[in-house]
Amino acid sequence: MTASANRQWLLRRRPQGPVGRVDLELARSRIPTPADGELLVRIKLLCMDPTIRNFMDADPGYKAPVAVGGVIRGMVVGEVVESRDPARSVGELVWGFGEWSDYVAGPAAQFFALPTHFGHPLPTYTHALGTIGLTAHYGLHDVARVRPGDTVLVSGAAGAVGSLVGQMARIAGASRVIGIAGGSDKCRRATERYGYDVCIDYKGDTALDAALGEAFPNGIDVVFENVGGAILEAALNHLRKNARVALCGMIARYGATEPVPGPRNLWNLVVNTARIQGFLVSDILRDAARVDTALTEIDSWIRTGRLRYDLDVRTGFENVPDIFNCLFTGAHTGRLVVQIDQDRAS
Amino acid sequence: MTASANRQWLLRRRPQGPVGRVDLELARSRIPTPADGELLVRIKLLCMDPTIRNFMDADPGYKAPVAVGGVIRGMVVGEVVESRDPARSVGELVWGFGEWSDYVAGPAAQFFALPTHFGHPLPTYTHALGTIGLTAHYGLHDVARVRPGDTVLVSGAAGAVGSLVGQMARIAGASRVIGIAGGSDKCRRATERYGYDVCIDYKGDTALDAALGEAFPNGIDVVFENVGGAILEAALNHLRKNARVALCGMIARYGATEPVPGPRNLWNLVVNTARIQGFLVSDILRDAARVDTALTEIDSWIRTGRLRYDLDVRTGFENVPDIFNCLFTGAHTGRLVVQIDQDRAS
Repeated sequence: MTASANRQWLLRRRPQGPVGRVDLELARSRIPTPADGELLVRIKLLCMDPTIRNFMDADPGYKAPVAVGGVIRGMVVGEVVESRDPARSVGELVWGFGEWSDYVAGPAAQFFALPTHFGHPLPTYTHALGTIGLTAHYGLHDVARVRPGDTVLVSGAAGAVGSLVGQMARIAGASRVIGIAGGSDKCRRATERYGYDVCIDYKGDTALDAALGEAFPNGIDVVFENVGGAILEAALNHLRKNARVALCGMIARYGATEPVPGPRNLWNLVVNTARIQGFLVSDILRDAARVDTALTEIDSWIRTGRLRYDLDVRTGFENVPDIFNCLFTGAHTGRLVVQIDQDRAS
Repeated sequence: MTASANRQWLLRRRPQGPVGRVDLELARSRIPTPADGELLVRIKLLCMDPTIRNFMDADPGYKAPVAVGGVIRGMVVGEVVESRDPARSVGELVWGFGEWSDYVAGPAAQFFALPTHFGHPLPTYTHALGTIGLTAHYGLHDVARVRPGDTVLVSGAAGAVGSLVGQMARIAGASRVIGIAGGSDKCRRATERYGYDVCIDYKGDTALDAALGEAFPNGIDVVFENVGGAILEAALNHLRKNARVALCGMIARYGATEPVPGPRNLWNLVVNTARIQGFLVSDILRDAARVDTALTEIDSWIRTGRLRYDLDVRTGFENVPDIFNCLFTGAHTGRLVVQIDQDRAS
C-alpha cells in the first residue's frame, strides 16, 4: 500500500465548455483509510454520466462543486476491501457515489449493495438494473404517470435512459412512442433496436416543431425530457390536455457557457392544464421497496426479451477524460462505462 | 324588442398591445332569440378579466379567438328572461361565459346558477364567491397543495385573485406569505389590507432576486404565479425541495407583441424536484361538490372577517373599453366589474 498506489483524476481548473486534458490532472496518492462507519471500496467500474460535467462548474446546482485540486466525483461500482460498518462485509459488491480513482473511502450509508441475485454481468448494474433503469422507471411511472393509450415523446431517445424509457412506455401500453435524437444513426437505432414508432432527427433538415405536429396529430400526453432548451420548447407546443412533462435532465445546459434560454411558451401549461415536474433518482434510492419493485420488473423484461440495453464498456484509467467527452460528441453507443480494475498495479 | 335594443361591443380589428377605441366598435342589434335548450340572459354585470385581451388575438390559446366583426366575450352575471330549457326558470340569476352586450343567448349548460343562498350583494359573485375565489381556492389547495408551515409567494398580490390567495394561504397555516406587486400603493394594500408579511415592489429599486433571497432565507415551498416572465424566473431561483408552482395566469404575456422569454433556470425544477402546474378554473366548475365545498368555506371566512375582498364597480356600457384597459395600467382597486343594467334603454 504505497503512497502512489491510488490513481486519481483531479480537477486542475474549471473547464469552459468541453473538458480538455489541460483541465484535469492524473495524480497518485496513498490509498485512503476508512473511519468508523466507513467502507474502503476498490473501484471496478466508473460510470460516465453527463451530470459529472456539472460538478466541474463552480455552481453545479444540486451537489457541491468539485474543488479545484479535488478528485472528480461520479457513480462507481466496486468491491468492499475494508469495512468499518457491520452492515457491509469485505468482498461484497456495492455501487454508490464515488470518485474517479482506484479506491474510495466513505460512509457505508452512501453505498448500496449490488442486487447480484438477479445474476447479470457487472456492467448491467450500471444500466438497466442500476440508476439508469431506475431513472427511466421512476420518471415514467411515478413522475409522468404514464397510462395505457398515452402518446409519449422521449428526447435523447438513443441515450442510456431514453432507450429504456421508450421500451418501458411501450410495455406500459402507450399508443404512440416517438423519440428525438441527434443524427440519423442514433435515430435508426431508436426505431430498429429500441422500438420507437418514429425518431425525429433534430439535427436533420426537418423543422422540429413541424415534425412533432406530424408525429402527434392529436398532441402529446407524456414528455420524458432529457435535453431541454429548444427541444422542450417545441414539445410544449404540442401538449394535450393534462399532459405531464418529466424533467429528467437538461443536457443542452451542461457545459453551456451562458444560461440556456427558457421556453417562451410556458403559457401552454395553463392552456392545457399541464405540468412540468423535475425529479432526481436519488429521491427513491433509499426507498428499498420501490427500488426492488422496479428492479424485479426490469429483470423480468430483460429475461423475456422485452427490454434491450446497450453497454459501451471501455478500459484504461488514463483514458477517462477522453471517454467522458464522448458523452457530448455522441461518439459512443450505449451506456458508457470505464472498467479500471484490469490495468491497475495493485 | 326593436332591432337596436341590444348594445354590443364588436372587435373592429385586432389590437397591437393595449386596446384602443379604434380597435372596437359600439353597435346595436336585435335581441337574440334562444333556440331549444338555450336561455336568453339579460346581462347585469360584465367582468373585466385580463384573459379577454387574449381572445382579441388571432391565437388566444385555449378559446377560439373573437372574429373580427364579432362581439367581445367574457364572464357575465345576468337574469334569465326567456328559458327554453327545463333546468332554468325566468327570473333566475345566473353567471357564465357571455358577451359584452345587453343580452346573450346560449346553451343552458354554459350558465351556472348564482349561489344566491349565501346572501351577498350581486358583485360578490364575480369575486370571492365567484370564479376569482374559486381560482384562488383551487389553485392554492388542489394545484399547489399548500400545507401548514409552507412558505408562499404570490405574484399579482394586490390583484383580485392574488389578494385572496394571500389570505387563504394564511388561513391554511402558511408560515410566511410574501407578495409581489407593481408600485408602492399596491404593496401597501397587500400588507395592510390583505395580510401579506411583506410585499416586494417589482417596479421599485430593489432587485427582485435579492429581495426574494431576503424574504425567503430558507426558500419557497409554494409559488402562486399570476404574472410570469421575469417574476417567474426570479421565483424559480429560490425554490425549496419539492416546491410547487401553480401557474394561474401570465399577465406579462397578455398584449405582448412578441413571445415573452421563458425562464432560463428550469434546471432548478430538477435540482429541487419541483413542479410547475398550469391550471384553469373551468376544470372544476362542473364539479358541483368541489365548488360547493370551496364556496361554503369562502362564505364562512367572509362572515368571520378572515377574508377581505375589494370590488371596483363601474357603470356605463359605453365606457367598457376604457374600464377594461385599467386592468393593464393598474388604475383600479379591486375586482373590476361593469354594471350595465342601469343605463340601458329597455
